[in-house]
Amino acid sequence: MWDALRPIGRDARSKGYRRYAWTGADADCRTWFQEQAEARGLAYETDRNGNQWAWLGDPAAGDAVVTGSHLDSVPDGGAFDGPLGVVSSFAALDELRARGATPTRPLAIVNFGDEEGARFGLACVGSRLTAGQLTREAAYELRDGDGISLPQAMEAAGYDPSAIGPDPERLARIGAFVELHVEQGRALDLTGDPVGIASAIWPHGRWRYDFRGEANHAGTTRLVDRHDPMLSYAETVLAARREAELAGAVATFGKIAVEPNGVNAIPSLVRGWLDSRAADQATLDTVTAAVEAAAREAAARQGVDLAVVRESFTPVVEFEHALRDELGKILGGERPVPVLGTGAGHDAGILSGSVPTAMLFVRNPTGVSHSPAEFAAEDDCVAGVEALADVLEGLACR
Amino acid sequence: MWDALRPIGRDARSKGYRRYAWTGADADCRTWFQEQAEARGLAYETDRNGNQWAWLGDPAAGDAVVTGSHLDSVPDGGAFDGPLGVVSSFAALDELRARGATPTRPLAIVNFGDEEGARFGLACVGSRLTAGQLTREAAYELRDGDGISLPQAMEAAGYDPSAIGPDPERLARIGAFVELHVEQGRALDLTGDPVGIASAIWPHGRWRYDFRGEANHAGTTRLVDRHDPMLSYAETVLAARREAELAGAVATFGKIAVEPNGVNAIPSLVRGWLDSRAADQATLDTVTAAVEAAAREAAARQGVDLAVVRESFTPVVEFEHALRDELGKILGGERPVPVLGTGAGHDAGILSGSVPTAMLFVRNPTGVSHSPAEFAAEDDCVAGVEALADVLEGLACR
Repeated sequence: MWDALRPIGRDARSKGYRRYAWTGADADCRTWFQEQAEARGLAYETDRNGNQWAWLGDPAAGDAVVTGSHLDSVPDGGAFDGPLGVVSSFAALDELRARGATPTRPLAIVNFGDEEGARFGLACVGSRLTAGQLTREAAYELRDGDGISLPQAMEAAGYDPSAIGPDPERLARIGAFVELHVEQGRALDLTGDPVGIASAIWPHGRWRYDFRGEANHAGTTRLVDRHDPMLSYAETVLAARREAELAGAVATFGKIAVEPNGVNAIPSLVRGWLDSRAADQATLDTVTAAVEAAAREAAARQGVDLAVVRESFTPVVEFEHALRDELGKILGGERPVPVLGTGAGHDAGILSGSVPTAMLFVRNPTGVSHSPAEFAAEDDCVAGVEALADVLEGLACR
Repeated sequence: MWDALRPIGRDARSKGYRRYAWTGADADCRTWFQEQAEARGLAYETDRNGNQWAWLGDPAAGDAVVTGSHLDSVPDGGAFDGPLGVVSSFAALDELRARGATPTRPLAIVNFGDEEGARFGLACVGSRLTAGQLTREAAYELRDGDGISLPQAMEAAGYDPSAIGPDPERLARIGAFVELHVEQGRALDLTGDPVGIASAIWPHGRWRYDFRGEANHAGTTRLVDRHDPMLSYAETVLAARREAELAGAVATFGKIAVEPNGVNAIPSLVRGWLDSRAADQATLDTVTAAVEAAAREAAARQGVDLAVVRESFTPVVEFEHALRDELGKILGGERPVPVLGTGAGHDAGILSGSVPTAMLFVRNPTGVSHSPAEFAAEDDCVAGVEALADVLEGLACR
């Protein structure tokens, strides 16, 4: 099943995936999902926000058990982040059927659109819209790097953007949502377990730092006459690392845009994006305030203007304790399944505000993610499918 | 005359010029040059390397006096860097005719192609090819950011790339080349003179720094597990400034390319370009060696690979003393015209290896260049035209 998905949107040079929302690679992934649904006799539908659903049983019956993840990727992403959850969902359903288990609740598999936000800069657009955490108006304002708006992109991909918006009726039919995901750290590798259960998602946000200086000739402008925003940016990058280290948080400058970006020109603008996360809100606030203070100090010293804009923010997400404990009981054998927090955002985090939600993590031996080198061992993937099948059976087949 | 040139290739948003070699804006500039030549009854021709020439008198007579500059720009460049020299050349010819001066040597005005190197990354391509400082083979390897090669770009613009290469017959016909250019520093502003004469061009070069780390998830990768090339880059940017300050040189990181350049991904690659210049070779060597050492130390500490490639290098150019002194005599009044060095490269620097060459600078009150804010006062531009006319008259009309 996975063989048909693997080549889609893979860059021949980097070996990484470039599956961005509403592109051709995304359309190919969506066709794959529909084919998998139909091959299993599931009722296929696309919701008003472009998320794909495959139903076993009557959705209208309510109290459904839903599993799934996403198929899109970050730029040059790995094969597992997202697809492992969708592939495992179909495989777990196959396993349920092989066991002869009969669901007493409706079951569904979902592929949420645009989870990574690689194209429009906002993560989890599909689930945010559905859960009412992104308004239709705000979604209409989203634009990609080429200036194409989200509705334009949806329309070009053959979807009707006029219907997007909150979908409370759909959420009301869901009794539990469980997302399986490759772990994006090394906690399970360190404990020696193939599968774990999520406790919480760290609060995290994205901040845009616009350092504006004065474009000038790199060969003839005296150092004392310069207003070079690249210097302020560089100091801020180092301050972010230092402050994160001090606080036990993470902070990253991974994306940059420079104008005019010429070898022999001092930049007029250096725009850098800070991604920061911490185990709790107070720690995150401490880190981001310290980074901004360091940036302002450097910019002032160098005669550079600085504007800081918070582009997105997700508060801490505690997954529902009752569902989490139930998963622990279903999966627990001679030793309990580890329960761990994560710094990564997920559609499950968005949905957890509306429906009981849980997550399963599959061991990542290197911890590497968002990279072509992202990896999970086949045995661990099989263990993930078994665990997900156990959970679906335990929740839906009693 | 300048009014027709001003709007070409100007970006409405930035107000800067984007006249890159062999683009539509470049073609429009070239049409303007041809029209100016023909309107004055000059013999127009394009040479084998795409440089434009306008001749008064018989080129075959030899010992020609040539003036001119370039019309292309850096990204979001100013209106004066390049065009001031070409416009002033036509205006100085008009002034000569108004004075009734009769040239006894052939006179020519030239527009050298691709001086800034904004598209293919190498400056002074037109003059380098003509002077034999860039081989045809190396020129064929040049590619722009979209992977389009120089010959492909020339062909798309309607020029035959098969003929490019050294042009010694053309150079042999030139007795003197004088380039007028807006100053790109504040030396004339500080001395209070509208016009100056160039002594030398500082040695300068461009180095590409490739920092390769490991792409990973910005939210879940522990700081200690990271190999983040943005940190090494940031330390190197600050080291470049520090070392340049210590040595009295200049060093700039103005261009960057990051992969995958995602907000939530630690980069796999940060590629930065160092532009550095100093008054003499030994100082430049000291600065660039110290910057590289600092970069290697940071990269090693952070588990990042570093490759440094020198992409271009131009040794110190001392303009011919005899011609320089002659210009000083022609222009000198009650007080001598200032003679000054510059950190900027020019076609005049390339040609100086083959023919007697000199440069005139026009005052730049802010020193700002390679920016939409680049400026020269109208009175100073007129003084530049007068000085250039004096020089042409003194050299060619005796």
